[in-house]
Amino acid sequence: MKLQSFAEERWHVPEGDGKELPSAVDGSTVATVSSSGLDFSAMHAYARRVGGHNLRQYTFHERAGMLKELAKYLSDRKQEFYALSTSTGATRADSWIDIDGGISTLFVFSSKGRREMPNDMVYLDGPPEMISKEGTFVGQHVYTSRRGVALLINAFNFPCWGMLEKLAPAILAGVPVIIKPASSTAYLAELVFRRIIESSILPQGAAQLVCGDLGDLFDHLDCQDTIAFTGSKSTAEKLARHPRVVAETVRFTAETDSLNMSILGPDAAPGTPEFDLFVREVTREMVSKAGQKCTAIRRVITPSEFSSDLVRTLSTELGKVRIGNPASKNVDMGALASQAQRNEVRSRIKELRAEASVVFGNQDVFAVTDADIRKGAFFMPTLLHCERPLASRAVHSVEAFGPVSTVLPYDSLDEAIELARLGAGSLAGSIVTNDNEVARDLIMGCAAWHGRMLIINRYCAGESTGHGSPLPHLVHGGPGRAGGGEELGGVRAVLHFMQRTALQGSPKTLAHIGHRWIRGGEELDPGVHPFRKTFDELRIGDTLHTTSREVTLDDINHFAEFTGDHFYAHTDEEAARKNPFFDGRVAHGYLIVSFAAGLFVDPDFGPVLANYGVDDLRFAKPVNYGDTLKVRLTCKQKTMREGSGYGEVRWDTEVINQLDEIVASYDVLTMVATREEWQKIQAS
Amino acid sequence: MKLQSFAEERWHVPEGDGKELPSAVDGSTVATVSSSGLDFSAMHAYARRVGGHNLRQYTFHERAGMLKELAKYLSDRKQEFYALSTSTGATRADSWIDIDGGISTLFVFSSKGRREMPNDMVYLDGPPEMISKEGTFVGQHVYTSRRGVALLINAFNFPCWGMLEKLAPAILAGVPVIIKPASSTAYLAELVFRRIIESSILPQGAAQLVCGDLGDLFDHLDCQDTIAFTGSKSTAEKLARHPRVVAETVRFTAETDSLNMSILGPDAAPGTPEFDLFVREVTREMVSKAGQKCTAIRRVITPSEFSSDLVRTLSTELGKVRIGNPASKNVDMGALASQAQRNEVRSRIKELRAEASVVFGNQDVFAVTDADIRKGAFFMPTLLHCERPLASRAVHSVEAFGPVSTVLPYDSLDEAIELARLGAGSLAGSIVTNDNEVARDLIMGCAAWHGRMLIINRYCAGESTGHGSPLPHLVHGGPGRAGGGEELGGVRAVLHFMQRTALQGSPKTLAHIGHRWIRGGEELDPGVHPFRKTFDELRIGDTLHTTSREVTLDDINHFAEFTGDHFYAHTDEEAARKNPFFDGRVAHGYLIVSFAAGLFVDPDFGPVLANYGVDDLRFAKPVNYGDTLKVRLTCKQKTMREGSGYGEVRWDTEVINQLDEIVASYDVLTMVATREEWQKIQAS
Repeated sequence: MKLQSFAEERWHVPEGDGKELPSAVDGSTVATVSSSGLDFSAMHAYARRVGGHNLRQYTFHERAGMLKELAKYLSDRKQEFYALSTSTGATRADSWIDIDGGISTLFVFSSKGRREMPNDMVYLDGPPEMISKEGTFVGQHVYTSRRGVALLINAFNFPCWGMLEKLAPAILAGVPVIIKPASSTAYLAELVFRRIIESSILPQGAAQLVCGDLGDLFDHLDCQDTIAFTGSKSTAEKLARHPRVVAETVRFTAETDSLNMSILGPDAAPGTPEFDLFVREVTREMVSKAGQKCTAIRRVITPSEFSSDLVRTLSTELGKVRIGNPASKNVDMGALASQAQRNEVRSRIKELRAEASVVFGNQDVFAVTDADIRKGAFFMPTLLHCERPLASRAVHSVEAFGPVSTVLPYDSLDEAIELARLGAGSLAGSIVTNDNEVARDLIMGCAAWHGRMLIINRYCAGESTGHGSPLPHLVHGGPGRAGGGEELGGVRAVLHFMQRTALQGSPKTLAHIGHRWIRGGEELDPGVHPFRKTFDELRIGDTLHTTSREVTLDDINHFAEFTGDHFYAHTDEEAARKNPFFDGRVAHGYLIVSFAAGLFVDPDFGPVLANYGVDDLRFAKPVNYGDTLKVRLTCKQKTMREGSGYGEVRWDTEVINQLDEIVASYDVLTMVATREEWQKIQAS
Repeated sequence: MKLQSFAEERWHVPEGDGKELPSAVDGSTVATVSSSGLDFSAMHAYARRVGGHNLRQYTFHERAGMLKELAKYLSDRKQEFYALSTSTGATRADSWIDIDGGISTLFVFSSKGRREMPNDMVYLDGPPEMISKEGTFVGQHVYTSRRGVALLINAFNFPCWGMLEKLAPAILAGVPVIIKPASSTAYLAELVFRRIIESSILPQGAAQLVCGDLGDLFDHLDCQDTIAFTGSKSTAEKLARHPRVVAETVRFTAETDSLNMSILGPDAAPGTPEFDLFVREVTREMVSKAGQKCTAIRRVITPSEFSSDLVRTLSTELGKVRIGNPASKNVDMGALASQAQRNEVRSRIKELRAEASVVFGNQDVFAVTDADIRKGAFFMPTLLHCERPLASRAVHSVEAFGPVSTVLPYDSLDEAIELARLGAGSLAGSIVTNDNEVARDLIMGCAAWHGRMLIINRYCAGESTGHGSPLPHLVHGGPGRAGGGEELGGVRAVLHFMQRTALQGSPKTLAHIGHRWIRGGEELDPGVHPFRKTFDELRIGDTLHTTSREVTLDDINHFAEFTGDHFYAHTDEEAARKNPFFDGRVAHGYLIVSFAAGLFVDPDFGPVLANYGVDDLRFAKPVNYGDTLKVRLTCKQKTMREGSGYGEVRWDTEVINQLDEIVASYDVLTMVATREEWQKIQAS
């Protein structure tokens, strides 16, 4: 199999033979890889001219729809991915993380895109900023799609997940991708990518693939491009210092080495559920993907008094691990990615042994199942123990990228924190404790060095997703040694591929750009009561000014009686007067909004289907009996729910008293039928 | 005057003579500067050990209080700052931007800190992420203070504002600062800093000052430190590539060169108010601070057909500008920072003249007021005109940091966009148009290249803060040539000095860390009705489960009658049935929340003072008559209002029907008196 690249809508067969990629399991050649003959300048230009242009024609919701379709399409074809994945050394459980994990990331981004982003091309960041007295000049932060390419450079360990977790937010952001998988497992990435292209779900130019090296691609990047890199720290440093990256301030994020730690709490003595959970977590992290996870636990931080028990129990558990052909059902741990990788891990252990002793694992004598130990890159789980971890350096800085961890004892929480920090920045840290005070102290002490931290106890362990699993909902990345970057985290990841711009101007102009009405902006005459308009007919700015209504003492008394809300501020003149906010009895807040609805609602059967909520309700002034209230209701924002017959309409609402003071301010949320749906409903 | 540095709580007099800093106005020596003899390693360690430790003892609100005090303290002493500022070449108007602008930035950050951040040390980023089915394992993003130093490197043009706009968010974030002002105007920064220290408002170690170069300070930085740099692009590149910065992934943000543009809309013909506004804006940006603003308009993009009118009008306006001693009342524009700076600007104009011709400004012959033209760094405003801007390079890349702009004609909006983009990334862009369609097209075309964009028209011009003014509320920075960084923008700037970490664990544990109750977390028995508890006595998690109440058809009819809300879904059985969301008449949403209040309120006079609002109200299920409702009310979050006798208490509220389905979900916001205040109120 000669891996191909995909450039400018064509599959490209490399010139020459390319580099051979051996199977992790038996050393046979799975494929060859080379990018020779690719025109990187043309790829870069094509992505921008065609891919970016095409993607930007769609709204966030429409792009989210593409991701969902893509997830379904790939899900239907995942068996072939699983089959090929075995050659990377992955067991079925390992492949599940890579393949199902990758596909589920598409689903989550699709869902987040539809729920948490507007059905629009502009994303509004925060509320308007009121920067003038009269309100004629306001500010609004917006995000728009960056006009460059998302260059996605992945590591060898998760060829499917790594590609999809970077692709999803970039596509959602409206930015075309050029994907460069790590060569050693590029055959799986190429297969998944081939299916993506076959599906024709993404628009032309939205995705290109480079199997092999990136040639002179970096020389074409500029400030609109984004590099998302996962791999070694040394490569990341080289890329970050690339003259073009620095000169053009190309946006660059890296996820690199990480000596992740897990701390066993001082309460979690042998015999407690937390001790067992810790053993399970450490073992699982060592064995899963044969320890080739950037989030794996490398440093096992334990109270000194538990360390011998811990080493003994971990050794017992590691002793049960069956190593061998990942395709076999009787195997718990497959192979490392390659024999080269195995040699690499061996050298790293040698470095660690200067400060720590091996307490489990013998690379010279171990059995493998269903495989030839001489041909495959098999490796025995190896546990080390470091006696004086505060005085050691290698155990905090040398990453053996395999099933290798070191036990580091501590004598006080401060020491545990100090040990955690010595990792100099990590992707993931965990704490196993049933004492929430311990949890808080450790989090406050360590969080600044970590991108993600778990606290595991008996209560949440059953549903815990585990130390080593990045989730699309949560940010993934970490400071320092971990690369200083951030990925995932839902919408946060999407915005990473967009540009934030602070806009200033009149409320009317900014509403025209952001499609959200801003107070002080133009009030349009809807012609009819706005509740008589369908979703299609409503315009942002359509405004209703209601008639007014007096609030009487009888009303307040009656409301108290009817609802049972006899709160003293509404019912006891003397007590209300003592309250620092009121001069006497005031109307209930819920009475104010109920009367307001009575004023603004148009009762007849119509396209407004339901009030599904209220946001940001604030009572700005007390309403006393004798006050007269009226309402301004303005169509603020419309969000079509694709695939349904209705959309969400948000109404900016103010309740105003006889002195023209605002007494209450809120957004009313309604569902409104489209013209077509409204005709159907009427005909039903 | 021998400028001093402030290190480890002592003023440090430099060894040796130091570099002489000449007055911009008459060339006399204002001060000498040198950092020789400073122990940078000790300063760095001191900031972390003492300053960071001290700052982290305070909450965001307490730190915000310090900024407010500081702003008042400096405001009382600003006349001495104004007096010294003249030596930098600044007129009174220029100094107002620097001095009053800097002080008002402290006020805004103080206000944002108290209004938009919790009264706590941990900042919660977004809502909890529901990542498990049963809800026993959830996610929550938090920000904690980074444990390093904020190294704030400022430019010469705004010695006061530049220092304060970087200091405010860092202090608010709980991060100690080391400030390094640009040498040429360091005397003003040193004076302002001296007053900050004298005030004793900031805790020990929170702020240190380096006048002169930074020695080996960079060699001590690591992943917990943050560099915020303003200055030239070439210096920024050097710092970004510093081996230590790259290896330790020191957080680095830069605000550098920028060839900001302003576009005159095709509608804004001579004779329109917008044409006049454009002329005013361009003139002001050229003259203000003698054009030494990184946000000044360098590129004046105009419809070709208006360009000769524009050049003529601009020339007339520039001809009126009185140049000279900035201390004089008869002067509109002071001097450049130094004679060296003047020579620099002259060379840049020479480069520009390869592609553009000078249409106004003659450096050889011009008069100055109250000053000696040979001694001061005076410069005549210079306007150039480039005939073929799309084919030119220097006009888009050479920044003459003085009162210099180039007129660039365009023939279509697409050309205008292309010209804007050729700046390759800018801090600020503006558009002067009264056509909102034009505004939207230009924003969509250019926003990705800009950190901030204004749209000016006749409606908002009166309150516009102008093209060149960064505001503390809005982000400041830009992609590409502008450095790729971001500062300001309210809370966004504070978070820049903090670390985001995704936490995972049980709701109870995460609530214990973030001080915000999460659904699924522990419900505490309050002992008494929670409305009987003072702010001090309430515990996060205190939960009330109410009795239940049936909603009858009479209730719905009565509510409709009483409030006037006869919406068909509540009053017309047949119409309600046609509605896709309902099976028949349903209760009003406002009826549900009113009855809920009737259920959860404790009526007697007590420490709960007022319901000031409701957040995130969602009606999840319709309530039909015959349904029975009850409420769970849980104390979710407490925010003490420092200096008042009460705090805000947020209650997580769910209304539940007889099938245990949630029908409504929201946060109730109340003001609750402290124990002391409650005693006072009772005694009153």
